[in-house]
Amino acid sequence: MKLITFLTDFGSNNSYVSQMKGVALSMTDARLIDITHDITPQNIREGAFILRTSAPFFPVGTVHVAVVDPGVGTSRRGIVITTNSQILVGPDNGLLIPTARLLGDIRVYEIKNTELMLKSVSNTFHGRDVFTPIAAHILNGLLFEEIGPQITDYVNLDFGTFEITSRSATGRVIYIDSFGNIITNINTFQLNQVLDFDKKIMLFIGDKQIRIPFVKSYDFVKPKEIIATIGSHNQLEIAINRGNAGKKLGVKIDDEIKILFT
Amino acid sequence: MKLITFLTDFGSNNSYVSQMKGVALSMTDARLIDITHDITPQNIREGAFILRTSAPFFPVGTVHVAVVDPGVGTSRRGIVITTNSQILVGPDNGLLIPTARLLGDIRVYEIKNTELMLKSVSNTFHGRDVFTPIAAHILNGLLFEEIGPQITDYVNLDFGTFEITSRSATGRVIYIDSFGNIITNINTFQLNQVLDFDKKIMLFIGDKQIRIPFVKSYDFVKPKEIIATIGSHNQLEIAINRGNAGKKLGVKIDDEIKILFT
Amino acid sequence: MKLITFLTDFGSNNSYVSQMKGVALSMTDARLIDITHDITPQNIREGAFILRTSAPFFPVGTVHVAVVDPGVGTSRRGIVITTNSQILVGPDNGLLIPTARLLGDIRVYEIKNTELMLKSVSNTFHGRDVFTPIAAHILNGLLFEEIGPQITDYVNLDFGTFEITSRSATGRVIYIDSFGNIITNINTFQLNQVLDFDKKIMLFIGDKQIRIPFVKSYDFVKPKEIIATIGSHNQLEIAINRGNAGKKLGVKIDDEIKILFT
Repeated sequence: MKLITFLTDFGSNNSYVSQMKGVALSMTDARLIDITHDITPQNIREGAFILRTSAPFFPVGTVHVAVVDPGVGTSRRGIVITTNSQILVGPDNGLLIPTARLLGDIRVYEIKNTELMLKSVSNTFHGRDVFTPIAAHILNGLLFEEIGPQITDYVNLDFGTFEITSRSATGRVIYIDSFGNIITNINTFQLNQVLDFDKKIMLFIGDKQIRIPFVKSYDFVKPKEIIATIGSHNQLEIAINRGNAGKKLGVKIDDEIKILFT
Repeated sequence: MKLITFLTDFGSNNSYVSQMKGVALSMTDARLIDITHDITPQNIREGAFILRTSAPFFPVGTVHVAVVDPGVGTSRRGIVITTNSQILVGPDNGLLIPTARLLGDIRVYEIKNTELMLKSVSNTFHGRDVFTPIAAHILNGLLFEEIGPQITDYVNLDFGTFEITSRSATGRVIYIDSFGNIITNINTFQLNQVLDFDKKIMLFIGDKQIRIPFVKSYDFVKPKEIIATIGSHNQLEIAINRGNAGKKLGVKIDDEIKILFT
Repeated sequence: MKLITFLTDFGSNNSYVSQMKGVALSMTDARLIDITHDITPQNIREGAFILRTSAPFFPVGTVHVAVVDPGVGTSRRGIVITTNSQILVGPDNGLLIPTARLLGDIRVYEIKNTELMLKSVSNTFHGRDVFTPIAAHILNGLLFEEIGPQITDYVNLDFGTFEITSRSATGRVIYIDSFGNIITNINTFQLNQVLDFDKKIMLFIGDKQIRIPFVKSYDFVKPKEIIATIGSHNQLEIAINRGNAGKKLGVKIDDEIKILFT
């Protein structure tokens, strides 16, 4: 099964996404799947996080087209990244890198071959004119060497480091989802070894300091109670049962967060 | 044709829906159709209504995965419901019941067989780790008996009763759509027998009492006029031609509504 | 490959779109693609513009179902338009006309044959009960003559005229996208012959008069600077690099716009 996914910041009240799909379907019979088109406009970090949480669930051979691209039409390069299992296509601005690292065995090709693009390439919409045609060509059997030269000086992006000791965990907010759940960069595989469910912890976030329980899921506490839990991304989440933690705590992406096991 | 639909309260600015689709496409070549992902978070009643209005239009054999699931990770059960024509998968919290009743000939199976789930089941996202894999297994030929035991003590949900006499109809608001049209639980098959189009009626809603016409469609009156009509769900609707009745009348879901035929 | 696209003003927090898809999939195995469902409710002009920008990218033989239909259930007619390359289905209110003109070689059929519709046609939802079944029948080999008589008195719609001289361009705002980019009806193929990139121009819009650069793309200026550029629709756009020009300039659809080459 041939698969192309799309992740953009285009929103849904326009025809940009469907233009990309029209281009794809004019070149291939691949199945087309939306990851999201509601990335905050031009927020490369957010796009990078969302792509990284989604791509691993797709079959081997899936081609992901990601377009959060404030530098479109300037000298920023377009790239294709091959990995152990899937292929990534998009701008060279860091957007694809966390996903590529997670999938492993990265090779990065600069998109140079204009024969693989639409005949008339706009300066403002490479998602349609460059990245989608390249994705279709890849599914049609293109050799990666035809795309352009391999490069190693691509733009980097990471989500910062986190630290877990026997008594605390420190990290950063990397995303706030539509429920207001605050997702951190603290990986819970390691956290699980030092912290048991149903313990109380002390949360430091912004200028706030709150004693909250660490529980298996949202509904283990009463409505409106603040909790820490292991989210579906396997990263530490701060949430409010049937409420919006991001708003209540006034938290922003990139804020520091610390928990003490007491 | 194999078909899976998805109905959730996940919104669109995240990757949760695409994670479910990635899981599905890793297990089956079924076509994937979105019903909606914009159910008001944790609003089981609204999800149940929307699913009931959509499912009957799908082909026999369609598997519907519905996830409005505030109790995820607690002791609430997961269920599969077989009906006359289609299959429903989701939490045991009432969400699937009105649709199942409408389709008829219900059998409810509790999801017990952990071999049908993803290897690592999170406490917060059974839509991805339990319900979607089960849907894929069903399309791949799973026997329903392998899911778990049949149960009869599932959580119930209905939309309340309505009453139609020769002079009045009384019921409740069950949904307000994106146009602001107020949809009631008053079924219009019976209403049609006692009330003719183009008659004036007296509407009681909240603390308001308004004389409005009962018309065939919105545009039979001038812009901004309030009307009663038979909506596309075959239920009595209160609407404003080219306006938003829900906002104008200050109506909420579950409010009582009465009309007098005068 | 059989393809149906959908463009509506239904929004996403309901089941209307999925009802249309259920009807389609009960009649055909066509691929179903969303153009958008977020047209401003009842805004026929906006729907017509979005459809025109998207349809040309789809393969020959694609059937587009467009439903922005404030007159549904009244005497307004339903139509099918065949063109050089694709087929359009929707209400006779102008919505389909700019796209049809662009594709060329128009023939317009009034939908009269009730055998091609769902058995029970609601007064409020012809998208589901009339247009989608007709689209499926067309993909299943229906002869266009079976739809109904050809008509020539269909409702017209255009986006107004624009004028380009050696010293100025005058036109109208026809759309503001989700980034706040202001899209005009001034076609840039001609504009390119009289205006070079990186020149300063004088912009007149509403009661404002601003000197701005005409650049190849958004990021050729500093963040928050106002620019004129050639958008991906090949029409003159006014934008703010990493900002929202529509809000900043207080511009509305149909406002006049003029630029002087100085």
